[in-house]
Amino acid sequence: MDVCQYLTEGIKRIDPNAEITSIPVADGGEGFADTMLTALGGEKIDCPVSNPLGREIQASYGILADQQTAVIEMAAASGIELLRPSERNPLVTSTFGTGQLMRDAMERGCRKLIIGIGGSATNDGGTGMAKALGYRFLDKHDQEIGSGGGNLNRLNRIDKSSVFPLLKKTEIQTACDVNNPLTGKQGASAVYGPQKGASPDMVELLDRNLEHLARVIKTDLKTDVLKISGGGAAGGLGAGLVAFANAKLQAGFDIVKEQTGLEEAVRRADIIFTGEGKMDHQTKQGKTPWGVAQLAKKYHKPCIGIAGFLGEGYHELYQEGFTSLFALPNGPLSLEESLKQAPSLLADTAEQIFRIIRMTKHE
Amino acid sequence: MDVCQYLTEGIKRIDPNAEITSIPVADGGEGFADTMLTALGGEKIDCPVSNPLGREIQASYGILADQQTAVIEMAAASGIELLRPSERNPLVTSTFGTGQLMRDAMERGCRKLIIGIGGSATNDGGTGMAKALGYRFLDKHDQEIGSGGGNLNRLNRIDKSSVFPLLKKTEIQTACDVNNPLTGKQGASAVYGPQKGASPDMVELLDRNLEHLARVIKTDLKTDVLKISGGGAAGGLGAGLVAFANAKLQAGFDIVKEQTGLEEAVRRADIIFTGEGKMDHQTKQGKTPWGVAQLAKKYHKPCIGIAGFLGEGYHELYQEGFTSLFALPNGPLSLEESLKQAPSLLADTAEQIFRIIRMTKHE
Repeated sequence: MDVCQYLTEGIKRIDPNAEITSIPVADGGEGFADTMLTALGGEKIDCPVSNPLGREIQASYGILADQQTAVIEMAAASGIELLRPSERNPLVTSTFGTGQLMRDAMERGCRKLIIGIGGSATNDGGTGMAKALGYRFLDKHDQEIGSGGGNLNRLNRIDKSSVFPLLKKTEIQTACDVNNPLTGKQGASAVYGPQKGASPDMVELLDRNLEHLARVIKTDLKTDVLKISGGGAAGGLGAGLVAFANAKLQAGFDIVKEQTGLEEAVRRADIIFTGEGKMDHQTKQGKTPWGVAQLAKKYHKPCIGIAGFLGEGYHELYQEGFTSLFALPNGPLSLEESLKQAPSLLADTAEQIFRIIRMTKHE
Repeated sequence: MDVCQYLTEGIKRIDPNAEITSIPVADGGEGFADTMLTALGGEKIDCPVSNPLGREIQASYGILADQQTAVIEMAAASGIELLRPSERNPLVTSTFGTGQLMRDAMERGCRKLIIGIGGSATNDGGTGMAKALGYRFLDKHDQEIGSGGGNLNRLNRIDKSSVFPLLKKTEIQTACDVNNPLTGKQGASAVYGPQKGASPDMVELLDRNLEHLARVIKTDLKTDVLKISGGGAAGGLGAGLVAFANAKLQAGFDIVKEQTGLEEAVRRADIIFTGEGKMDHQTKQGKTPWGVAQLAKKYHKPCIGIAGFLGEGYHELYQEGFTSLFALPNGPLSLEESLKQAPSLLADTAEQIFRIIRMTKHE
């Protein structure tokens, strides 16, 4: 919202009558709930939950103005930033807190949950989340197994007799920014395990355990989550939400697009501005500004990208719906200075562009 | 010329049929001779001269393709960069070498000299230059006084009986980028003396000596140079060239404008690009890009400024003929990195601007 405001300020210097529609967009990770609250109105709810290691913390999520829809970031309860680096251990970390946020929202009357999954500290296939919603994960002796991805090899059966009753009546959408399957070389453990603290041996164990989980899910819940796209998101929480909460996995950007009316706004606009801290050749692997540019392309509208840093291969974006791209710095600046001056640099960059636009109108 | 080429490269990526006229412009200081040679053709002439302290060095100047016009930078023979900081001493430094370049050009048949004066190590009122052209500066006993601004208090009369005969037949233009008078608070010694190594006491002595020189010039040569605008340029070489060589003092930019056909090129162009390493509120105090912008304004043409650094108060330039301004860096960069990447940054910046221009054409 701040960035929108600074760009607006720069545009208005040149074209005071410009009609500007500001839509902050985030794709499931940090800022997802705020984006949705800003776009749609609503309030923040504080809720005590267990962090990934079971310590009680205060987390928050949003309930939109319709009082029916909750917007939850899994990272608020089960995120990697909640742990010190030395504490990170995907054998034991749990998504239990995410399930608590979901339960709280349902208890407050929400019948639709939109869950942004990204930035997790976990690799438990969403079993922690399911446990908070009443599922029981039992071993051969009908004893509950311990938390975390490291205990899933002991799983014998899943008991759904005590599942929280409102879950069945609640629509669950998952905003997911990766396409990884649950297991294998592109799976949750292999690709994201190491950054959560897994050694190569642990990665192998975690991967085998998630595969075992998928087999038990298939037998007991009649759902096959082994190969679904996005099942590996957030340490298998993607697959878990499908299996335990009948969730629909969607690209975060698609959900935001739908909820914020972005597509209609693009259709009505003359020029689209979008951007991100850094834009480069990776931007076209589905990052948010790329999604905005694809919408612009669909409606044949010019789309201008603004970034703090235009990195390697950013020229490739010109083939992907971007009309032109601009970086913010007005001279040799450190990253720190650049961030500090971002408000005025954003306004100045928008002004510079609109000065060129006005120039051509006057010709 | 390099900058023109990189900008051209960027423009052609978007508009391969663009007609581009490249006119490198410098205003009397470093690069002045090269600018003129590039614009008008000609050759570089090497010539042995005395440096400001009398040591022999190899300097060069240009003779334009007409074989009639020489382009000389005073700094090539008498510049501050030729001395180590510890050697700088305006009491003794001399413009003798500049006079040698002038003489060499006249001996080779040039009947017009264009002399860029800027970056001097001297404060001798051009007496060294005049000495190289046959003037004699005599004391009460009709003995020649020593070199440098520190000896001018001993001057009693100026003998012009042995002046180099071709001087009278030669037209001399001086490209000057400052307006300071010879003496006083805004004079050569007070304003530029310190950067040439003068202490406050020396500044006072040098200023008095130049005033004395002006009195003797008035008596012996019937020319009053005390108050003329630009007389204080290059340690009084401006005044000296007027007094001893009947030179016309002009703004460097005006000479370049005239010689390069810049005005006609602006008149014919659709868009003007200009720039400098750093542009800020000082740019409008007569710097070269400001001059270009004024020409653009005169013909109601858009003028886009491109700089490595847009510094304090650069927004003021929008009131002074600039349509829009852009800085080169594509992210947080050090000055060193920024300079190293300047070729690609110049091309990319031109491309970004032309992408906006093309966008508006397609609307």
